[in-house]
Amino acid sequence: AAGERVADLHPAEIAHLLESLPAADREPAWEVIRDRFHADVLSYLNDDLRAELLHRLSPEELVEAAQQLDIDDLADVLPDMPDAAIQAVLNSLDDQRRSRLDTALAYPEDSAGGLMNLDAVTVRGNITVDVVLRYLRRLGDLPDATDTLFVVSREGRYLGHLPLSELVTAEPGLTVAEVMRRDLDGIPGETPAHDVAKRFEHRDLISAPVVDTDGTLLGRITIDDVVDVIRDEGEHSFLSMAGVQDEEDMFAPVRASARRRVIWLGLNMVAAFVAARVIGLFEASLQQAVALAVLMPVVASMGGIAGNQTLALVIRGLALDQIGPGNTLKLLRKEITVGLVNGLGLSVLIAGVAWAWFGDPALGGVIALALIINLFMAAVAGTLIPLLLRRLGGDPALGGGMLLMTVTDVTGFGVFLGLATLLLL
Amino acid sequence: AAGERVADLHPAEIAHLLESLPAADREPAWEVIRDRFHADVLSYLNDDLRAELLHRLSPEELVEAAQQLDIDDLADVLPDMPDAAIQAVLNSLDDQRRSRLDTALAYPEDSAGGLMNLDAVTVRGNITVDVVLRYLRRLGDLPDATDTLFVVSREGRYLGHLPLSELVTAEPGLTVAEVMRRDLDGIPGETPAHDVAKRFEHRDLISAPVVDTDGTLLGRITIDDVVDVIRDEGEHSFLSMAGVQDEEDMFAPVRASARRRVIWLGLNMVAAFVAARVIGLFEASLQQAVALAVLMPVVASMGGIAGNQTLALVIRGLALDQIGPGNTLKLLRKEITVGLVNGLGLSVLIAGVAWAWFGDPALGGVIALALIINLFMAAVAGTLIPLLLRRLGGDPALGGGMLLMTVTDVTGFGVFLGLATLLLL
Ligand SMILES: [Mg+2]
Ligand SMILES: [Mg+2]
Ligand SMILES: [Mg+2]
Ligand SMILES: [Mg+2]
Ligand SMILES: [Mg+2]
Ligand SMILES: [Mg+2]
Ligand SMILES: [Mg+2]
Ligand SMILES: [Mg+2]
Ligand SMILES: [Mg+2]
Ligand SMILES: [Mg+2]
Ligand SMILES: [Mg+2]
Ligand SMILES: [Mg+2]
Ligand SMILES: [Mg+2]
Repeated sequence: AAGERVADLHPAEIAHLLESLPAADREPAWEVIRDRFHADVLSYLNDDLRAELLHRLSPEELVEAAQQLDIDDLADVLPDMPDAAIQAVLNSLDDQRRSRLDTALAYPEDSAGGLMNLDAVTVRGNITVDVVLRYLRRLGDLPDATDTLFVVSREGRYLGHLPLSELVTAEPGLTVAEVMRRDLDGIPGETPAHDVAKRFEHRDLISAPVVDTDGTLLGRITIDDVVDVIRDEGEHSFLSMAGVQDEEDMFAPVRASARRRVIWLGLNMVAAFVAARVIGLFEASLQQAVALAVLMPVVASMGGIAGNQTLALVIRGLALDQIGPGNTLKLLRKEITVGLVNGLGLSVLIAGVAWAWFGDPALGGVIALALIINLFMAAVAGTLIPLLLRRLGGDPALGGGMLLMTVTDVTGFGVFLGLATLLLL
Repeated sequence: AAGERVADLHPAEIAHLLESLPAADREPAWEVIRDRFHADVLSYLNDDLRAELLHRLSPEELVEAAQQLDIDDLADVLPDMPDAAIQAVLNSLDDQRRSRLDTALAYPEDSAGGLMNLDAVTVRGNITVDVVLRYLRRLGDLPDATDTLFVVSREGRYLGHLPLSELVTAEPGLTVAEVMRRDLDGIPGETPAHDVAKRFEHRDLISAPVVDTDGTLLGRITIDDVVDVIRDEGEHSFLSMAGVQDEEDMFAPVRASARRRVIWLGLNMVAAFVAARVIGLFEASLQQAVALAVLMPVVASMGGIAGNQTLALVIRGLALDQIGPGNTLKLLRKEITVGLVNGLGLSVLIAGVAWAWFGDPALGGVIALALIINLFMAAVAGTLIPLLLRRLGGDPALGGGMLLMTVTDVTGFGVFLGLATLLLL
């Protein structure tokens, strides 16, 4: 019964279901899925689970699955197959599919070439609309997400496109060249997936042509795969910012999860000991006034939160390509101003609480001043750290939070204890 | 010259450019854009900037813009217009557009009804493919993202759909009822936008029909608007998690930004004082052993980082609808195990550093034990807090981080200082 219900589902929904299953419950599920296997499940599963499924299927089953997959999906899946299966799959492909696969594999996974499918329907400019319609009727079945046909020259150069909505409304006697549109440029195969997604998003595209350096049409990218890029990018920044990298499977084995996360925790431990070392400089002061030990984490934590707000905003701006040399300084100035405004406002509160708690107005003054300085540093660090990481070729979402917290902890502890030592003791 | 260059851009790209401009540089840009105004810019701008632009255009200009906008975009924009303009715009609409607008406005912005456009091309089942083709040719121009026609009954009930790719390949003599597909259910107008996006993503849709409770076709949703939902959802979780809410404009006025962020900082200050209060319980211990003050932030900070990793994973799982009663306990158990494994591993390191630094092996033992306990608590809090927030009807990404840090700070400080007091002093 479970098997029948699973068979009714769309492959994407089967993948979704598998991803939600705790590891122990996956065993029986794999069996059900093997029985009524649908190759498309492979293209929807996250990388972790797909690798597992690929190692459970026999080479024969993988050869069969490979026949059913689109070339773009096969190119994604192939490198994760067991070595024995890869050779079997390659041998099983006919010449056309094999050469298309080679084209797809020539480009990195996260480029236009890696995203493209090789199923574009092409027509020549010199035939009439009527002939195109007859040609399509003979084809009988168009690939998914075919909203437009690509017009190519005799040499295969991309010239323009002919939307189906245009085709069905055009005069049958006109030639393709007369009705085709030129509003869609070919996307070079090396274009990063991020830029492809931006183009689809801005121009509301459904499919777009991919070309090589000569302008020869290689294939087409479809919106469904772009949607996956957008979703993946969003998830990646979200998880990276929290120090979880590449953990696609919620129920990954404990060993794998622990290993992925401990790197991050270890780096944070180093950062935390740096901050502790700064506190250690003021041992004598802490001995004299224990109130300092009680209050110091407040200053540090406020800096961390404020800095994180700036950091998130700047990382989003970088992801949207909305931050560059033209506005960096103005953004920095704005963030510093916001930090100082909030620092001034909250410093009154924090001073009041510290004074009321420890009966010492000067202590209130010191903590207020330390807070303002730390929110200033938080704004500076929150703006510049992601820009620096990007400049160094890194992912601004990854590691930025930890570097920021090191800055705001060191500043928070150091400035508060330093000012207290100078002014109070 | 700037004007001409701007006029060459796609409205989405003009919106993108405006969003990147520092506030001071927007003045001249507004003028350029008013001169060569394109209504679609409104539908691409973020909410903050759109509101500003809407208040710069005259009622006459807004009336003109309203003529050009799709009904779904007009329904989004209208509520943000100045009151005087709203009435003028409503009066300017012809009966058909006015009644379509009313339909769109009857649904919340973030529902299927709010996302839909009212430009679906419909056909009846009893006509032939040939007649459909002639009908389309007479229409002359199909709405954007028309990949399929919707088949309706005489009463307007949604029955099925006829993809253009099917239409151009089908036998001209067959009837629509014979070639139409039934693989696309109507989406009820009240369906949350999040669920609509999931359906589009899973089923790789380009457009889908929206129906009312009787099954009457109301309109259609197109993938471009779904892409915007997906992008917005991702940004929203990312920013919420960092305590930045609804700050769409990077160069929002300082007052607005400061006001939006200070709420968060203020709440964090309360949480930080709660943690300080816990430290205050151990004033006597801190006085006796200043090393405790130096080391205590390390334990608290490690808990915060580990808890944040779990929190991010659980929030993502909730966003993907992959966490429910069936797997919550197993997820909790997995996260606790990962926390304990990493806690045990790192405790050796932390104990070694503390011992080497302060020459006291017992201090090393205490900090190691405190770390393990805090990573345990971090796993529990990181898993349960978002589930609890969701249960209470809140946004699990918003506030979860702060609650978590309160738990890990209180546990970190309390357990470390408490154990030290019991075992060392
Ligand atoms: Mg993935
Ligand atoms: Mg991969
Ligand atoms: Mg690929
Ligand atoms: Mg768009
Ligand atoms: Mg795909
Ligand atoms: Mg594909
Ligand atoms: Mg928006
Ligand atoms: Mg709005
Ligand atoms: Mg539009
Ligand atoms: Mg709407
Ligand atoms: Mg999809
Ligand atoms: Mg739109
Ligand atoms: Mg629309």
